[in-house]
Amino acid sequence: MKADLDRLMSARGLDVIFVACDHYFSAPRDYLTGGVAITSGFVLKTPGEAPVIFANDMEIEEAAKTGLRVVSFSELGWWQLLKDTGGDRTKAQVAVTGKCLEAVGVASGRVGIYGVGDLNWIVHMVELLRAAYPQFEWTGETGMTLFDEAFVTKDADEMARMRQVARATNEVLEETWRYLQTRRVEGETLLKEDGSPLTIGDVRRFVRKALLDRDLEDTGMIFAQGRDGGFPHSRGEDGMALRLGQSIVFDLFPREVGGGYHHDVTRTWCLGYAPDEVHQAYEEVMEAFDIAIEMTRPGAPACQVDEAVSDYFESKGHPTLRTAPGAQKGYVHSLGHGVGLNIHERPSISVRSVDTLQVGNVITIEPGLYYPERGFGVRIEDTVYIDGEGNVVSLTPFRKDLVIPLM
Amino acid sequence: MKADLDRLMSARGLDVIFVACDHYFSAPRDYLTGGVAITSGFVLKTPGEAPVIFANDMEIEEAAKTGLRVVSFSELGWWQLLKDTGGDRTKAQVAVTGKCLEAVGVASGRVGIYGVGDLNWIVHMVELLRAAYPQFEWTGETGMTLFDEAFVTKDADEMARMRQVARATNEVLEETWRYLQTRRVEGETLLKEDGSPLTIGDVRRFVRKALLDRDLEDTGMIFAQGRDGGFPHSRGEDGMALRLGQSIVFDLFPREVGGGYHHDVTRTWCLGYAPDEVHQAYEEVMEAFDIAIEMTRPGAPACQVDEAVSDYFESKGHPTLRTAPGAQKGYVHSLGHGVGLNIHERPSISVRSVDTLQVGNVITIEPGLYYPERGFGVRIEDTVYIDGEGNVVSLTPFRKDLVIPLM
Repeated sequence: MKADLDRLMSARGLDVIFVACDHYFSAPRDYLTGGVAITSGFVLKTPGEAPVIFANDMEIEEAAKTGLRVVSFSELGWWQLLKDTGGDRTKAQVAVTGKCLEAVGVASGRVGIYGVGDLNWIVHMVELLRAAYPQFEWTGETGMTLFDEAFVTKDADEMARMRQVARATNEVLEETWRYLQTRRVEGETLLKEDGSPLTIGDVRRFVRKALLDRDLEDTGMIFAQGRDGGFPHSRGEDGMALRLGQSIVFDLFPREVGGGYHHDVTRTWCLGYAPDEVHQAYEEVMEAFDIAIEMTRPGAPACQVDEAVSDYFESKGHPTLRTAPGAQKGYVHSLGHGVGLNIHERPSISVRSVDTLQVGNVITIEPGLYYPERGFGVRIEDTVYIDGEGNVVSLTPFRKDLVIPLM
Repeated sequence: MKADLDRLMSARGLDVIFVACDHYFSAPRDYLTGGVAITSGFVLKTPGEAPVIFANDMEIEEAAKTGLRVVSFSELGWWQLLKDTGGDRTKAQVAVTGKCLEAVGVASGRVGIYGVGDLNWIVHMVELLRAAYPQFEWTGETGMTLFDEAFVTKDADEMARMRQVARATNEVLEETWRYLQTRRVEGETLLKEDGSPLTIGDVRRFVRKALLDRDLEDTGMIFAQGRDGGFPHSRGEDGMALRLGQSIVFDLFPREVGGGYHHDVTRTWCLGYAPDEVHQAYEEVMEAFDIAIEMTRPGAPACQVDEAVSDYFESKGHPTLRTAPGAQKGYVHSLGHGVGLNIHERPSISVRSVDTLQVGNVITIEPGLYYPERGFGVRIEDTVYIDGEGNVVSLTPFRKDLVIPLM
């Protein structure tokens, strides 16, 4: 959590965290600032100090809302630097970067570069920064990064926001269920108010608006019917009409509007009735889900949870990533992942995970079975929290029923 | 435009364009693929060839919808690589990158890295790639990049999409105008249906839903009233009630839902009536707007357009970025920018621009005047297209009136 940042810097020998901002949502930026709508500039943090925001003149008013120290590029002589470099913005950026480091009192040492942005830009910038400032070591990080480690456990402020996102997402599930349940049916097809077939695109629009009513935004929901649901990351076809008896994988992972904390939930629905093979897969996925929840506790190696689920699925005759890496049918993905400002965070809950579960984790549990050539997929996913007492608390109380009985 | 990519590669001596994908929307990724919902993997393009998508197993079905050649990491031996590297994903990624280059037939040469992602990741990856594959030159780019240059002119397919986004955005402006116009008023405050004050947060929600009705999504609209509108990038306060006679800067820049082409428009509105000083600033901004449109033509240096606008504002006694760099009042930003898959693209229309306007540009024209200490800002912005005949065609026909007369 945020209180760990200084320790995590020290473990990496970092003298400064250097977050570059762009017009993309950036978890490191928002984690350090509490959320700030700036589209350029830097956020710098040194050990034991609060972050400092360096912003362009047009955005200092937005930046100031964070309560953090804000320095405008003008104050650092941006316009003169731009003149000195003959109007070359890249060179002026290199020059102003040195002044930012000076402003936070760092004269040399190890700089950890973070943030979300254009890869071509940072690759070139780092070459120039290394040449201009050899007294600094400019470093990146892959694998379990400083922010990954911090994100692994959520503090009370973060949990308050995540609970609110969870509540609102559960309401949207309920609204969507009721919306589908009350459609008219002709033959095997659901109808809209105007009598034309209800499509996946229509449902997506309904869901997105229900999210906005609660100040959440969709980030690419999956609503995949039939064979499409047999591929875990197929989003589903907007033009497809909803039909009775088809499995629908509905994976919803909205966040606070404008970027912020996420919730992640999947339900598999059949309208009216479920074919036997879908029903059987559903029962097995539900059993796997219960096994996973049972195994989830602080101190448990995350791999053991997915191993227990894989054991179970294999005992039922399904291929898994363990028995058939790269398989396109059976249980073809890992069990879960951390959730927060990013939709996918550590810990990773997979048979290959090196992570250990701990108090403060917010993770998904999402076993699934996929048989595209048989025309279906089934996945059930809750977001759960490991609380201070070590209890596993679901943030997704919404019912897990397979069949939506039509009215 | 896209047809220029091979020429632009050749000008940079690039043997391959290497776009790394992450769960962020990425203009380079979508430009090369036509839009693909993959959250990892690479898109590679070599001279004279169509792009090739390298995706993880779960996303090959999504990737295949593009009609492009798709290679799964499994096919390249991902699971064996992961085993060989003791489960180290970073090392496996380095190993599989070599196989991707092999798969597109590039054995050595200059690799141009692009895409949107985690800066820490690419900074570290590039170090590892340089060590593992010294036969390649791994390069980034700042300033006018390959994609910037391609994006500068839009082809017919892009224009069809941008016109559609423009049409829908104009409809949303009309709906928002009518919504505000028909609110009840108590004293100087607008009311909601339930009799409580109508806030900026309410209006934002209304606008976001009106956008979604048209399959557009908000990307951070500005709706800034009074003093807040005096700072060009202040977003406005959700809790603030709408009041008569206040200037409201409404800057809307939505895109196709899930990421895609943008439209960019600003109107300044006063509800019921406008104070004299706001009205005067508005008249001057409108005059500046007309001057800018008059100067906009293919072959014109972009700086001249902003110089003409700056001349005019200075003649009216306003500080500009030319007379007072870093000024917080007067005309404090540049005149405009290109618009496309990114909200800010080249050409840059500023007094410092080195760009030349040309047929196929889609640009904003957005003069403004800002006086926060006097409690207002005014900006008027259209997105315009320079068509094949060299005509400047506004994509934002919506009326520019300052006052919304209440009903």
